[in-house]
Amino acid sequence: MIKAIVFDAYGTLYDVQSVGEVIEAAFPERGEYITQVWRLKQLEYSWLRSMMGEFEDFWAVTREALHYTLGTLGLRPEEALFERVAEAYNRLLPYPDAEAALTALAGRRLAILSNGSNDMLSALVRNSGLDQHFHAVMSVDAKRVYKPDMRSYEIVEEKLGAKPDEVLFVSSNGFDVAGAKRFGFHVARIERVPAAALKDEIAGAATIGPLTMFKALRLQEEAMSQRPDFVISSLSLLPGLIDGLDVEPIARSA
Amino acid sequence: MIKAIVFDAYGTLYDVQSVGEVIEAAFPERGEYITQVWRLKQLEYSWLRSMMGEFEDFWAVTREALHYTLGTLGLRPEEALFERVAEAYNRLLPYPDAEAALTALAGRRLAILSNGSNDMLSALVRNSGLDQHFHAVMSVDAKRVYKPDMRSYEIVEEKLGAKPDEVLFVSSNGFDVAGAKRFGFHVARIERVPAAALKDEIAGAATIGPLTMFKALRLQEEAMSQRPDFVISSLSLLPGLIDGLDVEPIARSA
Repeated sequence: MIKAIVFDAYGTLYDVQSVGEVIEAAFPERGEYITQVWRLKQLEYSWLRSMMGEFEDFWAVTREALHYTLGTLGLRPEEALFERVAEAYNRLLPYPDAEAALTALAGRRLAILSNGSNDMLSALVRNSGLDQHFHAVMSVDAKRVYKPDMRSYEIVEEKLGAKPDEVLFVSSNGFDVAGAKRFGFHVARIERVPAAALKDEIAGAATIGPLTMFKALRLQEEAMSQRPDFVISSLSLLPGLIDGLDVEPIARSA
Repeated sequence: MIKAIVFDAYGTLYDVQSVGEVIEAAFPERGEYITQVWRLKQLEYSWLRSMMGEFEDFWAVTREALHYTLGTLGLRPEEALFERVAEAYNRLLPYPDAEAALTALAGRRLAILSNGSNDMLSALVRNSGLDQHFHAVMSVDAKRVYKPDMRSYEIVEEKLGAKPDEVLFVSSNGFDVAGAKRFGFHVARIERVPAAALKDEIAGAATIGPLTMFKALRLQEEAMSQRPDFVISSLSLLPGLIDGLDVEPIARSA
């Protein structure tokens, strides 16, 4: 029996590439590069800070990563511009398939578990209008570690009362799929870039650019041992998948 | 008083780019791409496995990362070819400045602390002929975590009897500089790609390719709070730097 369907936010419900327009406007011709390096370093810093036992919240990590990224271009923008670009992370667009999928799943207990700070997640779900779909929006903040540290996933049971094998966790991030599966969740991977599509993209590229590198580094299934239970190409296929599972409706819960 | 000078191996003494030739021969026109993605995923898997509490030694991690990388190209090579490419990691070339610097530092207690497994490190220092320079070659294996987990750095005191503030740690890897500094070592960063050089390389590139992305992601000083005590552009400047420090000669030690 599945008691909760818990979504990753960044990359799963929300398109991290959607900061690209704001960045391109601020730093012409560098939108693609900055978007990829920023996201890659943001995740890296979340992992390194977890390992080093030196937690800073995801807003600090996001800003550090942006600072680093702009530094590689020799850019030191004035504060107002830096803040405007950083703020784009709180206005990420949901994937086009997100809202319809969440609407179709009404009646189940839906939640988010994200690296984002409480403030970032509040802004994100409010700005995107998706807030009414979620029973809970959970940040790793309380544990002072990031995914895929096992402690981050404990928050789900603490907040929702659902044991690991009563949770279906949905993520497009390979590291998160691996961590959630190791923790004991049932896991559905959203495969936004199928292996065959990436292979063709690389084969057809004169030079393998930053976005293709990002897809290669972040959007393929990891070669570690944990495998997802389900792989679907889009959130729009999630309601159909969940119809085949034994999911507790909200009305039946305490 | 500095009692030991401890070097990182991969990227500091040994050039991780030197696998490129073997890879290019095995997979024509893909040497640059595979070399970068392989190294990036190798480090990523070492971090993720540390965070998930699921240690596998660096040989397993190195092979997982290679498997992943080849998978992004749709490549599933036969076992002998896979092993030949993986083995290139045990035959990395030292940087041209490494041997002369180590020779000039004779009479001090020199050591390696590396993510590499004991077997990998033994092969690496033997294959490169650098083994006679080191008092100790230390693997993180014993702690079952990778750098920059603080526990990995404890090995230095356990094996060499040198307290953190009696160690000069030398690394070109930003995450390792940050971790070593946080642990309490004195830290010299080898800046193999100065910020101005990277900036120029990006400005001059029609498309930002995989090697430039690698330099941008891995070879700049991190934007986290820990700063190295010293920054030098090459190992060849290390003997001069160390001449200015109070370093205990081997003869005086117990």
